Amino acid sequence: MKYNLAILGATGAVGMEMINILAERNFPVDELRLLASSRSAGKKIDTPFGEITVIEATSNAFEGIDIVLGAAENDISVRFAEDIKKSGAIYIDNSSAFRMNDDVPLVVPEINPEDVKKHNGIIANPNCTTIITLVAINGIRKLSEIKGIYASSYQAVSGAGAGGPVEMYEQSKSILNGEKTVESKVFAHQIAFNLIPQIGGFGENGYSSEEMKLQNEGRKIMHLPNLTVSCTCVRVPVERSHSISANIITADRLELEDVENMIAKMPGCKLMMGDEYPMPIDTSNQDTVFVGRIRRDLVNENGINLFCCGDQVRKGAATNAVQIAELLIN
Amino acid sequence: MKYNLAILGATGAVGMEMINILAERNFPVDELRLLASSRSAGKKIDTPFGEITVIEATSNAFEGIDIVLGAAENDISVRFAEDIKKSGAIYIDNSSAFRMNDDVPLVVPEINPEDVKKHNGIIANPNCTTIITLVAINGIRKLSEIKGIYASSYQAVSGAGAGGPVEMYEQSKSILNGEKTVESKVFAHQIAFNLIPQIGGFGENGYSSEEMKLQNEGRKIMHLPNLTVSCTCVRVPVERSHSISANIITADRLELEDVENMIAKMPGCKLMMGDEYPMPIDTSNQDTVFVGRIRRDLVNENGINLFCCGDQVRKGAATNAVQIAELLIN
Repeated sequence: MKYNLAILGATGAVGMEMINILAERNFPVDELRLLASSRSAGKKIDTPFGEITVIEATSNAFEGIDIVLGAAENDISVRFAEDIKKSGAIYIDNSSAFRMNDDVPLVVPEINPEDVKKHNGIIANPNCTTIITLVAINGIRKLSEIKGIYASSYQAVSGAGAGGPVEMYEQSKSILNGEKTVESKVFAHQIAFNLIPQIGGFGENGYSSEEMKLQNEGRKIMHLPNLTVSCTCVRVPVERSHSISANIITADRLELEDVENMIAKMPGCKLMMGDEYPMPIDTSNQDTVFVGRIRRDLVNENGINLFCCGDQVRKGAATNAVQIAELLIN
Repeated sequence: MKYNLAILGATGAVGMEMINILAERNFPVDELRLLASSRSAGKKIDTPFGEITVIEATSNAFEGIDIVLGAAENDISVRFAEDIKKSGAIYIDNSSAFRMNDDVPLVVPEINPEDVKKHNGIIANPNCTTIITLVAINGIRKLSEIKGIYASSYQAVSGAGAGGPVEMYEQSKSILNGEKTVESKVFAHQIAFNLIPQIGGFGENGYSSEEMKLQNEGRKIMHLPNLTVSCTCVRVPVERSHSISANIITADRLELEDVENMIAKMPGCKLMMGDEYPMPIDTSNQDTVFVGRIRRDLVNENGINLFCCGDQVRKGAATNAVQIAELLIN
């Protein structure tokens, strides 16, 4: 059996990756419809499924489609969600618009695949940093209930879309050419050779929207309504792969060896030991989340300290969405 | 009264900065003797104190000197420490060789200036990340006893010496020119557009030497023998200024407003509020430690979450050493 798929926001970084991942994973595609704004409509894209002309996303663009993969921003997602449902397609949405809705499953296939069944037309794909962190700590969750997480992120510029790397490299060139000031459009400040400790807007409690996602989405995905997370999200001048330094507080005191053995067994995870550790340049353009630097938390004896790294455009977005589609058809 | 000073390791990044800072702070310098390895001996250096010829560091190079500022590696520091003591000079050492010795005070002038008096010829200058973090949390320490710290660092390449920025910029140029592989000499791996979650060698507990310094040196400087610290140190492609994302666990539950008011009052500290936060490009080439993103820890109600940033060559090394010299002569 083959399926008709549409990608909403097909010309963005995540949308383009979705096309490749559908092909890589031999997803049984009959028609692949690429939808984007009127600006991109008419553009011809060379895909593993042949050349496809981009169509403007409109209310009736979803007719005959079985599954829509959403790679658009929240406002676009909200605008078309009802049209998608009406067309009879199931909507797997990468935006954050519907993630916390009670009737919308939020799924990381390695963690809560069974939640897919509860959908009501929409299934949400979690935040990229959340996916990478939760896949990394999935083995710990199997050993003891996770009570709290301290996390500091090192987030790649491609997390801000295709324009992020362009801006970082342009700014880097300018600085290497001796220019004193650079232009920032994608980011609020210079990102080349700098750090920006803000991703998303700040809420009343001082945390950014990105920082609260790990707690809010983590609670829903792991079915841990009382989980607490103190997160700090920082943009770093790295092209691809988000990294997270995390301390995981568990109900029981765990042995490091048990943690390592369990992480090594988890799907989608690769354990690194000794002098080897995850780095963005080694973990990009693949779906595995790399986990290393595993050690005992020195503040809390029920804590485990680790450093993980994964490609946020792939496993943190496009691959996870295609995996959800695979759960749907199997 | 004026003093004869020597800088041991004068031609390195920290040594050169010490010369400038002595002049900036109007330190009462009579003679300034610049000592380095035989390789640099004879080199003429233009300083605010006039042109000075570098002299080879030998056993009797310290005669007539009142204060030696050490900016050399551990092995050089150990080699000359006895010679310095014999010459009658006081040795303010930036290496980590003597920091944990019982008869060697370890001093951050904003925190434990009184410890300077207990010296026995050597006073140690703390680790750069330790200095910046402790100056940032000094206000919290005044409000309640600090029990534990979770810290993840974002450390600039200049922390590895003058060769660090050269390597980062050379690698960046190569990558922007389309080269696929780059040469790494200063760092174990490519640092341009990458992260390296290792600074120093790994100990038996899995922590790197750099990571353990915040706990071990923090205990000594703050007189908190039971302080526990879980630290992760990461090298980032930033030229100058180390940043630290930290959660500070205190004995009592603190009000955010009290924390902010106290940090704003602390010497050497600048509080940033609302949408303003510390970033390396804004905090370099100055002595202030910038503290922002102050918010309540969501895991532990007795915790405070913050992001701080400071120039590790200046306040994290050279300036702190000159401040110790000022304590000595006052």
